[in-house]
Amino acid sequence: MNINGTPTRTLRAHREQRVIDIIDQTRLPHALHWLRVATLDDAAHAIRAMQVRGAPLIGATAAYGLAIALSSDASSTHLANAGELLRSTRPTAINLHWALARMESVLQPLPAAQRCAAAWQEASAIAEEDVLQNAAIGQHGLALLRQIPHRQAGRLNIMTHCNAGWLATVDWGTALSPVYAAHDAGLAVHVWVSETRPRNQGLLTAWELAQHGVPHTLIADNAAGILLRQGQVDAVIVGADRIAANGDVANKVGTYLKALACADNDVPFYVAAPRSTLDFACPDGAAIPIEERESDEFRRVHGLDARGVPSALQQLPEKEAVANPAFDVTPARLVNAIITERGICSASSRALLALYPEMSAPK
Amino acid sequence: MNINGTPTRTLRAHREQRVIDIIDQTRLPHALHWLRVATLDDAAHAIRAMQVRGAPLIGATAAYGLAIALSSDASSTHLANAGELLRSTRPTAINLHWALARMESVLQPLPAAQRCAAAWQEASAIAEEDVLQNAAIGQHGLALLRQIPHRQAGRLNIMTHCNAGWLATVDWGTALSPVYAAHDAGLAVHVWVSETRPRNQGLLTAWELAQHGVPHTLIADNAAGILLRQGQVDAVIVGADRIAANGDVANKVGTYLKALACADNDVPFYVAAPRSTLDFACPDGAAIPIEERESDEFRRVHGLDARGVPSALQQLPEKEAVANPAFDVTPARLVNAIITERGICSASSRALLALYPEMSAPK
Repeated sequence: MNINGTPTRTLRAHREQRVIDIIDQTRLPHALHWLRVATLDDAAHAIRAMQVRGAPLIGATAAYGLAIALSSDASSTHLANAGELLRSTRPTAINLHWALARMESVLQPLPAAQRCAAAWQEASAIAEEDVLQNAAIGQHGLALLRQIPHRQAGRLNIMTHCNAGWLATVDWGTALSPVYAAHDAGLAVHVWVSETRPRNQGLLTAWELAQHGVPHTLIADNAAGILLRQGQVDAVIVGADRIAANGDVANKVGTYLKALACADNDVPFYVAAPRSTLDFACPDGAAIPIEERESDEFRRVHGLDARGVPSALQQLPEKEAVANPAFDVTPARLVNAIITERGICSASSRALLALYPEMSAPK
Repeated sequence: MNINGTPTRTLRAHREQRVIDIIDQTRLPHALHWLRVATLDDAAHAIRAMQVRGAPLIGATAAYGLAIALSSDASSTHLANAGELLRSTRPTAINLHWALARMESVLQPLPAAQRCAAAWQEASAIAEEDVLQNAAIGQHGLALLRQIPHRQAGRLNIMTHCNAGWLATVDWGTALSPVYAAHDAGLAVHVWVSETRPRNQGLLTAWELAQHGVPHTLIADNAAGILLRQGQVDAVIVGADRIAANGDVANKVGTYLKALACADNDVPFYVAAPRSTLDFACPDGAAIPIEERESDEFRRVHGLDARGVPSALQQLPEKEAVANPAFDVTPARLVNAIITERGICSASSRALLALYPEMSAPK
C-alpha cells in the first residue's frame, strides 16, 4: 500500500547482499524507520521483539531469516538449528511454522552448496504469494462488503481489531485488504479502529489507513460494545493467527469479545486469512497454545513527550502483578464467514476442506 | 478502608470551615494527594475533571458542593444556580441527580437563614448513608459469594471493571464491598482487575486493593474473554452509574463486553449498587444518556518518567479522530443479580419494585 503516495511493501529483500530491510513497527506511528536484518539473530529478534508482527509477515520474515542463516553456513546442522531458533520466537502464529516447514521441505533434500540460492528463491516465493493471496482476499471480501446492508446512511462502517493490515503482511493485509479494495473501488468506507491494548497495534492500523487515505476513527477496546449496540457498525473483520480444523480462530486478545458483541447485535463477524493460517493438526481452539507475554508491555506506555521525542512511562508500580495473554480463541459458532484467497467459506471443517481439499482431514 | 493500615474515608468534611477535603484521584496510583474543595466551582471542577469519580462519591461530593455554595449565599436563586451547575458536570451517573434532588427538597422550603446549616447536615447524612448502604451491600454480596462454586482450587476469582471500590464511594465501595467483606471474613479471594481504558480506573482498583491487602492481578480489558473461557473467573461484579426501571445497567464502557463473556461461559455477572443508582424514570437503557468525553483522555497516557516524576505522553497524533463514549448499557437479560443494600434481586422491574416498594412504577 501507499506511504506518502508511494506504493511500498513492508519487507525489502536484497538478495545480492544477503540481507533484508524491514519497517521497525515498534517505532510506528511516531517514526517510519527501516531496519536492516543481516543475521539469523537479527531476524529472530525482529520477530520476538515485534519489530515485525502479524502472522503472514512473521512467516515471510522467518523464511528470509532462514535464507540469511544459510548464507553463512548451509550445513544440515545449521539449517536445523536456525529453524529451531526461528520457530521458538512466537508460539501462537501458525504461519511461522508453516513458512519454516515449507522452507525446510525444499532445503533439506538439497546438497549444502545449493541451499543458499534455493532458500532465497523460496523465501521470495513465499513473500510474493503472500501479496497475491492478500489481494485475492481483498477481492473476495469486497464482494461480501457490497452485499452488506448499511445501518447508517452514507457510509459502510467496518470495525477491526489489532492490525491485520498491510503492516501485518508483505502487502495489502488480510482483514484490511477488503477495506482497501472497497476504498479503491469507490465505496464510502469508514473503519472503527480498536486501540488493542496492551501493545496498541490499533495505532498501526490508524497509521496505515491514514497513509492510504481511508477514513477511520480510533476507539478504546472497551467501546466496541456500545458502538455495535448503537448500530454504528455494519461488520467486524479481523485477521487470524491460527485457525483450527473446526473453524475456531486464535487472534489478538480481545477478538472474542468483539465476536460476542457482533452475535448479540446481529452484525456479521468475519475472519480474513490465507491458507497458511489454517492448522488442520489442531482439532479445535483448545489445542492452540496461547502466548503469555512479558508484563512490561502492560506496565509501560509509549508516546511523544512535550518536545516530540518518543518516550516511555511506567504506568504501573513494579509490585503490581499483571497477566498478559496475547491471544484469545473465538469459537467457530461466532464466526459468520472466513474470507480466504480462494473465496468465502463458513467456519467449519467441512467448508474449509471443500476450499482446501489438498489439506488432510483432522486426525 | 485502609490506607497504610489506617481506616480512611475518601471525603473529609470540615463543617466549621465550610470546606471538604478529597483525594485527587487523577494523581493516583502514583501520589496520594488530598485536595481542598472550598468553593462551588472547586466542587464542580472536581467532579468534571474526575478528581472525584464513581457514582456514589460524585453524589456525596455534589451534596457537599451545594452546602459549600450556600455557605456564601443561601438565596433561592443561588441554590437553583448551584444545583444547575453541579448537575451539568456529568450526564450519566444518576446519583448526582438523586443527591441534588434530595438536597433541594430539604433546602428549598427553608428560609435562607436556615439553609446553610441544613445543607451541611443533609450532605453529611447522604455521606453517612452511603457508608452504611455499601457495608450492607458487602454483607449481602458476601452471602452470595459463599454460595458460588470455585472453578479453581484454593481461591475465589472475582473479576471487576473500572473502579467501584472504596474510592468510588465514601467508604467500602459497591462492587468491591463484597470482596472486602469476603477478604475480611477470611475467604481466599483474588481479583482480576481490568485496566479500564481510556482512564485506567483499574489502576485505582489495584491501588485500593493493595492498600487493604487483597490479592489481585491487573489485566488488559481485552483479556477478560480468555480468562473467562479458561475457567479462571468465578464471578464478575461491577458497579453501576444508572439502573433503568427494567434492570438495564449503564456502567463504565466495556462492562457490556464482560457481561456477554460471562453469559457465554456460564459465569454469574453481578451488579452492586445502592438505591440511589436506580432511575425508575428511565424505562430502559436506551433512555440513559451516554457521556462522550474529550479525546485527550485517549490521546494522552500517564505514568512515571525515568526519574519517577508523574508525566504524560501523546500516544496519538492530533490529526487522528477519536470516539470516546464513557459508558455502555448492559441489558438486564445479561445481569444475574443486582446486589443492593436491601438484599439481592434479579434485574427486572418487578424485583426492583419488590425491594423498593416506595419507588413509583415506570410510567
